[in-house]
Amino acid sequence: MALMTPDQYEASLKRMKPRVFMNGKKVDSILENKNTQTVVESNKASYAWALDPRYKDIMTCYSPLIDEVVNRYTYLSASLDDLVKKAQAGTFTSEMLGTCTYRCVGYDAFHSLASTTWEMDRDLGTKYYPRFIEFLKTVQKKDLSAAGALTEPRGKRNQKTSEWADPHLSLKIVERKKDGIVVRGAKINISGAYAAHEIVVLPQSAHSKDEVDYAVAFAIPPDTRGMTFVAQYTPFSAEREMCDDIEELGNPLFGQRETSMVIFEDVFIPWERVFHCGETPYSGKLVTRFARTHRMTCGGTCKVGFMNQIIGAAKLIQEYKGLDKVAHINEELAEMVVLRETGRACGLAAAMKGTEEPPGSGVFLPDEMMGNVAKLNICNAFWRVMALAGDIGGGLVVTMPSMKELKNPEVKKYVEEFYSFGSDEPTENIMKVHKALQHWTAGLHGVGTWHGAGPVMAQKIMVQRIANYEHEKELVKRTLNLKDKKKKP
Amino acid sequence: MALMTPDQYEASLKRMKPRVFMNGKKVDSILENKNTQTVVESNKASYAWALDPRYKDIMTCYSPLIDEVVNRYTYLSASLDDLVKKAQAGTFTSEMLGTCTYRCVGYDAFHSLASTTWEMDRDLGTKYYPRFIEFLKTVQKKDLSAAGALTEPRGKRNQKTSEWADPHLSLKIVERKKDGIVVRGAKINISGAYAAHEIVVLPQSAHSKDEVDYAVAFAIPPDTRGMTFVAQYTPFSAEREMCDDIEELGNPLFGQRETSMVIFEDVFIPWERVFHCGETPYSGKLVTRFARTHRMTCGGTCKVGFMNQIIGAAKLIQEYKGLDKVAHINEELAEMVVLRETGRACGLAAAMKGTEEPPGSGVFLPDEMMGNVAKLNICNAFWRVMALAGDIGGGLVVTMPSMKELKNPEVKKYVEEFYSFGSDEPTENIMKVHKALQHWTAGLHGVGTWHGAGPVMAQKIMVQRIANYEHEKELVKRTLNLKDKKKKP
Amino acid sequence: MALMTPDQYEASLKRMKPRVFMNGKKVDSILENKNTQTVVESNKASYAWALDPRYKDIMTCYSPLIDEVVNRYTYLSASLDDLVKKAQAGTFTSEMLGTCTYRCVGYDAFHSLASTTWEMDRDLGTKYYPRFIEFLKTVQKKDLSAAGALTEPRGKRNQKTSEWADPHLSLKIVERKKDGIVVRGAKINISGAYAAHEIVVLPQSAHSKDEVDYAVAFAIPPDTRGMTFVAQYTPFSAEREMCDDIEELGNPLFGQRETSMVIFEDVFIPWERVFHCGETPYSGKLVTRFARTHRMTCGGTCKVGFMNQIIGAAKLIQEYKGLDKVAHINEELAEMVVLRETGRACGLAAAMKGTEEPPGSGVFLPDEMMGNVAKLNICNAFWRVMALAGDIGGGLVVTMPSMKELKNPEVKKYVEEFYSFGSDEPTENIMKVHKALQHWTAGLHGVGTWHGAGPVMAQKIMVQRIANYEHEKELVKRTLNLKDKKKKP
Amino acid sequence: MALMTPDQYEASLKRMKPRVFMNGKKVDSILENKNTQTVVESNKASYAWALDPRYKDIMTCYSPLIDEVVNRYTYLSASLDDLVKKAQAGTFTSEMLGTCTYRCVGYDAFHSLASTTWEMDRDLGTKYYPRFIEFLKTVQKKDLSAAGALTEPRGKRNQKTSEWADPHLSLKIVERKKDGIVVRGAKINISGAYAAHEIVVLPQSAHSKDEVDYAVAFAIPPDTRGMTFVAQYTPFSAEREMCDDIEELGNPLFGQRETSMVIFEDVFIPWERVFHCGETPYSGKLVTRFARTHRMTCGGTCKVGFMNQIIGAAKLIQEYKGLDKVAHINEELAEMVVLRETGRACGLAAAMKGTEEPPGSGVFLPDEMMGNVAKLNICNAFWRVMALAGDIGGGLVVTMPSMKELKNPEVKKYVEEFYSFGSDEPTENIMKVHKALQHWTAGLHGVGTWHGAGPVMAQKIMVQRIANYEHEKELVKRTLNLKDKKKKP
Repeated sequence: MALMTPDQYEASLKRMKPRVFMNGKKVDSILENKNTQTVVESNKASYAWALDPRYKDIMTCYSPLIDEVVNRYTYLSASLDDLVKKAQAGTFTSEMLGTCTYRCVGYDAFHSLASTTWEMDRDLGTKYYPRFIEFLKTVQKKDLSAAGALTEPRGKRNQKTSEWADPHLSLKIVERKKDGIVVRGAKINISGAYAAHEIVVLPQSAHSKDEVDYAVAFAIPPDTRGMTFVAQYTPFSAEREMCDDIEELGNPLFGQRETSMVIFEDVFIPWERVFHCGETPYSGKLVTRFARTHRMTCGGTCKVGFMNQIIGAAKLIQEYKGLDKVAHINEELAEMVVLRETGRACGLAAAMKGTEEPPGSGVFLPDEMMGNVAKLNICNAFWRVMALAGDIGGGLVVTMPSMKELKNPEVKKYVEEFYSFGSDEPTENIMKVHKALQHWTAGLHGVGTWHGAGPVMAQKIMVQRIANYEHEKELVKRTLNLKDKKKKP
Repeated sequence: MALMTPDQYEASLKRMKPRVFMNGKKVDSILENKNTQTVVESNKASYAWALDPRYKDIMTCYSPLIDEVVNRYTYLSASLDDLVKKAQAGTFTSEMLGTCTYRCVGYDAFHSLASTTWEMDRDLGTKYYPRFIEFLKTVQKKDLSAAGALTEPRGKRNQKTSEWADPHLSLKIVERKKDGIVVRGAKINISGAYAAHEIVVLPQSAHSKDEVDYAVAFAIPPDTRGMTFVAQYTPFSAEREMCDDIEELGNPLFGQRETSMVIFEDVFIPWERVFHCGETPYSGKLVTRFARTHRMTCGGTCKVGFMNQIIGAAKLIQEYKGLDKVAHINEELAEMVVLRETGRACGLAAAMKGTEEPPGSGVFLPDEMMGNVAKLNICNAFWRVMALAGDIGGGLVVTMPSMKELKNPEVKKYVEEFYSFGSDEPTENIMKVHKALQHWTAGLHGVGTWHGAGPVMAQKIMVQRIANYEHEKELVKRTLNLKDKKKKP
Repeated sequence: MALMTPDQYEASLKRMKPRVFMNGKKVDSILENKNTQTVVESNKASYAWALDPRYKDIMTCYSPLIDEVVNRYTYLSASLDDLVKKAQAGTFTSEMLGTCTYRCVGYDAFHSLASTTWEMDRDLGTKYYPRFIEFLKTVQKKDLSAAGALTEPRGKRNQKTSEWADPHLSLKIVERKKDGIVVRGAKINISGAYAAHEIVVLPQSAHSKDEVDYAVAFAIPPDTRGMTFVAQYTPFSAEREMCDDIEELGNPLFGQRETSMVIFEDVFIPWERVFHCGETPYSGKLVTRFARTHRMTCGGTCKVGFMNQIIGAAKLIQEYKGLDKVAHINEELAEMVVLRETGRACGLAAAMKGTEEPPGSGVFLPDEMMGNVAKLNICNAFWRVMALAGDIGGGLVVTMPSMKELKNPEVKKYVEEFYSFGSDEPTENIMKVHKALQHWTAGLHGVGTWHGAGPVMAQKIMVQRIANYEHEKELVKRTLNLKDKKKKP
Repeated sequence: MALMTPDQYEASLKRMKPRVFMNGKKVDSILENKNTQTVVESNKASYAWALDPRYKDIMTCYSPLIDEVVNRYTYLSASLDDLVKKAQAGTFTSEMLGTCTYRCVGYDAFHSLASTTWEMDRDLGTKYYPRFIEFLKTVQKKDLSAAGALTEPRGKRNQKTSEWADPHLSLKIVERKKDGIVVRGAKINISGAYAAHEIVVLPQSAHSKDEVDYAVAFAIPPDTRGMTFVAQYTPFSAEREMCDDIEELGNPLFGQRETSMVIFEDVFIPWERVFHCGETPYSGKLVTRFARTHRMTCGGTCKVGFMNQIIGAAKLIQEYKGLDKVAHINEELAEMVVLRETGRACGLAAAMKGTEEPPGSGVFLPDEMMGNVAKLNICNAFWRVMALAGDIGGGLVVTMPSMKELKNPEVKKYVEEFYSFGSDEPTENIMKVHKALQHWTAGLHGVGTWHGAGPVMAQKIMVQRIANYEHEKELVKRTLNLKDKKKKP
């Protein structure tokens, strides 16, 4: 089996020295900084599950590419059954972590690259596909974690890329050398990149033929010369920095989703890591195929897992308060269940209706319509779940004191008495569950879920692009026995 | 193949003489009355499709029971693949008809009966299952149309059945004879019953042990002595009665969903047609298993088909008006598509996650949670689709004149000019499509869709009954490292 | 007092002979045709209320213009208090009728004309305002009913009016004579026009300066030579035609909203009835000022009255069924109340924030933002109220038989027993209330309410036009202490 | 004029020494702790506005009680006009602060106390009203800030108060002395209490007659012996503690809404400060009258002000990105405007339909139905506004780095370039506005807005209690000519 242990993963990170900044300071070690550490912990879990008999069915599979069992997050789906497993893995990882499995975006980028390099080679006679497959074999054999990077800073949205005063607001090839290319620019909102072994870079969008230098895809380790990471910093980051004990926090071990801006200052990419370079008609395909596969999971089944965490916390609070029989609370819980199951159904349908794309490539992608439908539904559903869980949680979700008060001898007795709900549950548990709901309903997850895998408008546009109304019009024409059009004289 | 032709079906109806009333008058022939005729046409279509090479894959299947190809609507699902086909058939029939396939409720009742008679026999040593199977073989061999009947008039809802002054507001066994039973009462809101060969009757609800006489299920032809049908009569019925040509109407051939109240005045049911008689603990199972299978289709995929008709009509109007490029119209169309695909996904997931129920019975039923989720989503989605299509249709949807004006020499020129939208489409087509949207958005379908397969509260209650929050609570306990409860002193 | 009696109104109609067609036939007398009669009844009610001591406060007021008490529907609002009364009258008439008071659109057109003719005279030196006031004095003195007409057939929406092959798809001046003008074209979706004494015609939309011949407003009686009415014909029209007794119907006396297409075939309008003729920059003002006043009532408080009818019917059914204590039904009723009160609040706020428009004119119009907000909320609220009431009504709302069955000796006993809900309420009452809910929730009102006073997109566009974000931006700039922009080099 | 300056207010606070804990530590000075300071700043603003010619119309009024001009937040509304001003003040303070004016709850408690003490005296012959008025005169003359406190910890919700093992989970009178009473228990979720001069305490809920010791209302300064404050501590508190400069924060000066748990450990209340003591039938009135007045502002017009901040920030981001002409963004902005105006309309209607309560008392309260409708609408609207603004804000709202990076020489250039959107706006501004949207859409405001003034279910229950369907039923009975009930034999 080509599987690393969590310790081996940690050891591998120690050998890498990415240049990371957070909150105005340099991060000396991502293994030690309290916030970057959460990404490391999340990735470690992905290695642990693969070795755990309870979870190996979902987290591993056999790869004919290297004739070994590999971590699912390095594997290329080759059947509808693989897609169903992929959809289920999205739920599993997110309900276990309560945050991203940071290997997810890279995994989805692999699918886009496999499909599109195969197609470029077929259409253009390029040699990207074997190059990509060689790279992927290494990933599988070494069980590497890969992050994915698409989103870019961008300039004025009412101008074309070529009109921007600063051409590097989209990542650009600035030099083509014999042994590789040099790129300059940045990717933003990139999840967990500094703790990956490889960053897989795709274009941000389709490109027109005068944007050849923006049509680029490649993979590169995060400590490559010229790369810098400026990490996000939110109120939740501050809270984690200030905590005495991670159990004071809403998601102790795995925290919020951690992202960074990734800056490429004239970074050299050797040819063997370049998978798209100037073939502008295929840039858009790389993006939409990524979106197609990512929306099933990140936009669909992953949020089913988050909802499980939220529903579980709301249910516990209902029990702590003695509200088990209260009709409107039970109805709210059921409403959350319905929203969750709708997400699960759309994700499953996206998998079940998936197709080999392009035919002959061997790469299976989820159904594009259903993936978009999944994401679009989830965006709105997630805000609603937040509202419902916030209702059940009550005012304490936003007004509770620090859990440090439980250790403050002057205050402990007040907190123990007045946050007990008169129940026999340890007050510490009660406060922790409220803290968890604070994390979910009074923090980053509403906006984060909306924009992850693209905001709602992106799905609406895609649905409009895919929808074809011929079948529906034909039904009506037959039902009503419509006549042919007037002949024009 | 055990398949009737449409003509054979019509001929078989001529031999039956159900006692039917509509609009204060007796219906002499359901084949000739303009409104009851629509039910006959719908059933005829189900025979025609089964013989049509284009549709036979969906409308027929091999039945090991009689070792012949049978109409799907007489078949018992025996695998997940059967359930997926069943879900798809629900969409197919409804998009072809724009109304019920009236064999649907009976078909779903077969599943409930097969599952529950098998279980009763196993648990109680009764002999219902072989009796039911014999009946079903006849249905398959003769390719009979079966209606299903559950809903009852009921008395005061805040009283128990046993407290009602009139005990027949629920169907009741009034006599047990050597060769059969005698029942009295009524079923209401029953779709297409007078044009079926058999009416399959299930209980309306679970029954307590003091309601033994209400725990009854059986099958009986509609012209059995003592049976009377009082047909619904709506504005759409009046319009159909008054039309000169069915092409004036919104759904020319198949009309609205036609129901009736079915009255049983001391109707004798021979034992070989009785499938449940007094075993009160199983009455509720008959109902919930029916609901479970019916909600996947009637509550889910069937409405996908209706939405196709609506979306097609809205799209045509957009084109007639020259609004193809208008963003908000395109977004409305896409919203309808998303609602439709969500319904399709839930129906598909209900099939995919279906189970043999009870294990060993050989009968496959859709997943109960997903079936309920499908129906619950569709109820709200359908009203929204109506609102959106009504927006695109415009005021004409409710203000258009009769299509007879196209034949009125004094008026024709006005209508031709002023309802042309300046397009080269025949005004007749334009008016017909508006008429179709009137049918869908300004008529019975909102309320009908909501209550068919049970109103939303029925699904909410079922979701609350099924939902189990242990898994979700465990996730939270582990994530937060919650302590054990305080020990009670 | 300048007030007619209902009898005088009816007598006045007998002297008029408008050319009306319905369902492919000529309507000999709008007083006798069962469908056009409902408009006459509605107008009669407006005369009766004005003379009824219980209602005269709301239905009449003192007009300084003629120094007499007049019907409110002929009066020009001259204060905020007048606007509040106008808003309340909208609720009163609609809850009493369950349909349009057909004098409403003309009334709102008076406000637009008074405001805009005053402004044209001020700006252009025209003499429209005194001419309009003379006309209005006659309306007040004779207590005339006036209909209003704006909407037009229109050609391809992606073309300009001047590009349409048929230039008469918008009403057009075809000749200017010494004593008046001649117009050709049509207005569609016009409520109750054939039963009015006067039809007040405004442009359909703003006009560019090359559309001079479309910039026209005037008033004219419906039996003027060259005018033809093609009445709407819906399933509800057919049902009314076929009924033996109007008590079989959902809204016995007043029916559905009755509209027609009004055709102008070279109709001569004398100058004293022309209020706008070629001043294109003011065409749009006539439209938006009409919309501004109409949206407060037709789009706002009128629907409060309809909702009262719906809520009352749903409440009765709840009681008939013995569901008084059922939580989810009570919550649904409360949800309808909240939607209704929101509509009432927006209408009231539109009145309270109204302004004199233009300043100096003496004409008070509701606040434009609030009027649009009222309408936009109501559109969605009305569909929701329909869904909720349909839920409470149950399947019978769409499946009930004709009320004629109560008079059918063979069927009466079944209906009496099985639609009794075991209550001591006469079954006739129970059926009538279900019929009323059918009228409201399974008919024309969803689409009608949406499009009356303009569809949702019209309000969204207007809100975008009115909204000014300077205040909001300033708040943020001050809160965040934002810096000035970078200086451009 | 009885008005303090901000400096006088600050000086007055220095003389008070409340016992406050936050984040496990004692707060030595609420004037110096970065988080408690935000409450002081908010209150200071209320003193500054009253002296500012631009704002004095809204922030001050003449009080006949002391024959002087007073701060509105110490004044008793005595007319509909006062209520309208009160509603408007709610919007003004919240749009200026972006958080609570912490004098609001006390102000609303004054209204409840004035109304209910007057009624108790009238009904029971008690002397609470003159006692309360004396207290209020002092508040007015000294221009005191008053906080209000209702919510309590509570025990098991499925038990009665008298069944709780710990009777102090609701605030309870533990001793009645000659000169006053002694209370024990706690209030939770109390806004800004430690920075008030007086805390006005009302019961949490209605009380049954065996709960005499819980029926208590009084006013007391926060540094009274026996009182302790345990302040809330959220991620936003941590962020504020860690900031170098408050301009790094989303709401620099005024922050989040700051609450605390207020513990009463055998606190002595002199009789002249006791306004309710054992008269259980009036406890519920104190609560519902408070809710009635509080829901108009906290639940209604206050959120209009917050929405202005959110809309302003979203609009600025639209402009920074060059998205001014993008239809879906403009539609989202308009949707927020519609939600805001709906809130404003409901608040205004609540004021306009207000009444003297009880008649004769001279105290005006908003309309109860409209106040509840306002709050109920706002709860859902606020979550929607968050989702919409989060959409416009984009992923950066949750992924942006610390604003400290702008001062980090190694990182500044990256941030300046890549968060510029290619615009000429200082990047600092761009980041600040994103930070503000983070504050509003990715933090405490969704849950906080929902629960402030009571969660949605509280409003639903109140609407059900107030709604009376007699008028609506009468309308239907008349419209349908319903018969009288069957006579019972």
